[in-house]
Amino acid sequence: MASPTTLTISSKNYSSWSLRGWLLCRLAGLEFKEVMVSPDDAAAKAEMLLLAPSILVPCLRHQGVTVWDTLAIAEYLHEIKPKAGLLPADRAARAHCRAICGEMHSGFASLRSALPMNLKARFPGYKVWSRAQTDIDRVLQIWQECLEQYGGPFLFGDRPTMADAMYAPVVTRFQTYDVTPPQADGQGYCATILALPDLQHWIAQARKEPEAIDELEVEF
Amino acid sequence: MASPTTLTISSKNYSSWSLRGWLLCRLAGLEFKEVMVSPDDAAAKAEMLLLAPSILVPCLRHQGVTVWDTLAIAEYLHEIKPKAGLLPADRAARAHCRAICGEMHSGFASLRSALPMNLKARFPGYKVWSRAQTDIDRVLQIWQECLEQYGGPFLFGDRPTMADAMYAPVVTRFQTYDVTPPQADGQGYCATILALPDLQHWIAQARKEPEAIDELEVEF
Repeated sequence: MASPTTLTISSKNYSSWSLRGWLLCRLAGLEFKEVMVSPDDAAAKAEMLLLAPSILVPCLRHQGVTVWDTLAIAEYLHEIKPKAGLLPADRAARAHCRAICGEMHSGFASLRSALPMNLKARFPGYKVWSRAQTDIDRVLQIWQECLEQYGGPFLFGDRPTMADAMYAPVVTRFQTYDVTPPQADGQGYCATILALPDLQHWIAQARKEPEAIDELEVEF
Repeated sequence: MASPTTLTISSKNYSSWSLRGWLLCRLAGLEFKEVMVSPDDAAAKAEMLLLAPSILVPCLRHQGVTVWDTLAIAEYLHEIKPKAGLLPADRAARAHCRAICGEMHSGFASLRSALPMNLKARFPGYKVWSRAQTDIDRVLQIWQECLEQYGGPFLFGDRPTMADAMYAPVVTRFQTYDVTPPQADGQGYCATILALPDLQHWIAQARKEPEAIDELEVEF
C-alpha cells in the first residue's frame, strides 16, 4: 500500500513557514494529511525563532519523496501539479516570480524578528522599528511593481502563484501590527489575500490553538 | 541588435552570492559578460553585510529577462540550459538538491556572520564561535548524506549541480578559517570543489582585487 501524502507543520498561529508550505499544497490541489509537530518541541521552537535550519517544517512526504524547505516544496509541487499554475506560464514572469520568492526566502530578517507572525494578536498603532520599516517598504515596492505589471488581483495576475503563498504571512503581519499600505493597490492586494478561503480556514484553526509562545509575543 | 547577456557581481573576494551566481552561469555553459558593481557602492556593501535584500548582485540579464536572487538564477539557467544538468535528472534527487539549496539560501546566518567569505585571507587555528559550529555541523551532515547516497565526487554524483555552486563558498570559508571536516568524504569533497577550474579562476581574480572591506575582516 502506498504511504499517505503528508505535510509536517507546527504552530498555525506562529509558524509562517508552515503556513507557506500548507498554502502551496492547497493551491496545488494536493490531497495531503497534516502532521503536527508540537510547538513545544525544542527543535520546532528553534526553527520558529530562526535559530535552526528549517528542516523539520514544512516537510512534504509524497510517493516516497521527502522534500523540506518551502521553495523546494513549491518547485516540487509545480513539477507534479503543473496545471495548478504555481509558476506563471510566461518565462520572464516566471523568472520574476522566482526572484521575489527568493527575496522573501532569504531576506527580510528585520521584518521577521520585529513583527513575528501571530494570527491571534492585534496591536493597533504598533510602532515599527526603522529597520523593519525598510523591509516593509521593499515588500510594498515588490507588490506595487507586480500589481502594475501583471494587473492583479494576485501578484502575477488573475490566479495565485507561489509568490502569493510566500508573501501571505506578511499580509497577516500587516493586519496584526496595524501596517496599512499607503497605496490602493497594496491595500487591495492585502484584502485579496485575506479573503482566500484557504487562508481563512488556516486562520480559523490558528485561533483555536490554546498555546502561546512567549518568545514570539512582542512587547507592546 | 540583441543586448548582451550580463551578470552583475560585486567583490570577488568577499561576495559569496556573486560567486554562487557566477559559478552557476559557468556550470550552465552560458556566455556572459561580467558587470562589476564597486564594493564601495553603499547598496552593494549593504547587501554583503546582509543589511539589504540581495537585489543588486548577482543579477542576470539575458534576452530581455532580468533575474535576481541566486536560486531564481539557478532555476532560470536550468530552464534555458537543461542539458547542463544543474538539477539532477531523478525526481527524488532533484527534490533533495533543491531542499539543500534552500537550506543554504535561507539559513546558516551564524556561519555567514562569523566566517564571512574572504578568499585572500588565511587564519590558521581560527576559533569558531559555538553557534557557527552548529551551522558547520549541519553543513557536514548535508554533505555526508549526499556523498553516501549519490556516490560523489560532487554532491549529486559525477557532475556538479546547483547544490555544489550553493555550497562552494562554504568550502572556501573552511579553507580560510582552517575548518577541516572530520570525515574523509567531507575532506575529499572540499578538495573536489577547490580543484574546479572555474573556482580556481575566480579565486585568482579575487587575489588581484586591491580593496579590503573592514567590516568583513574578522578580528583574530
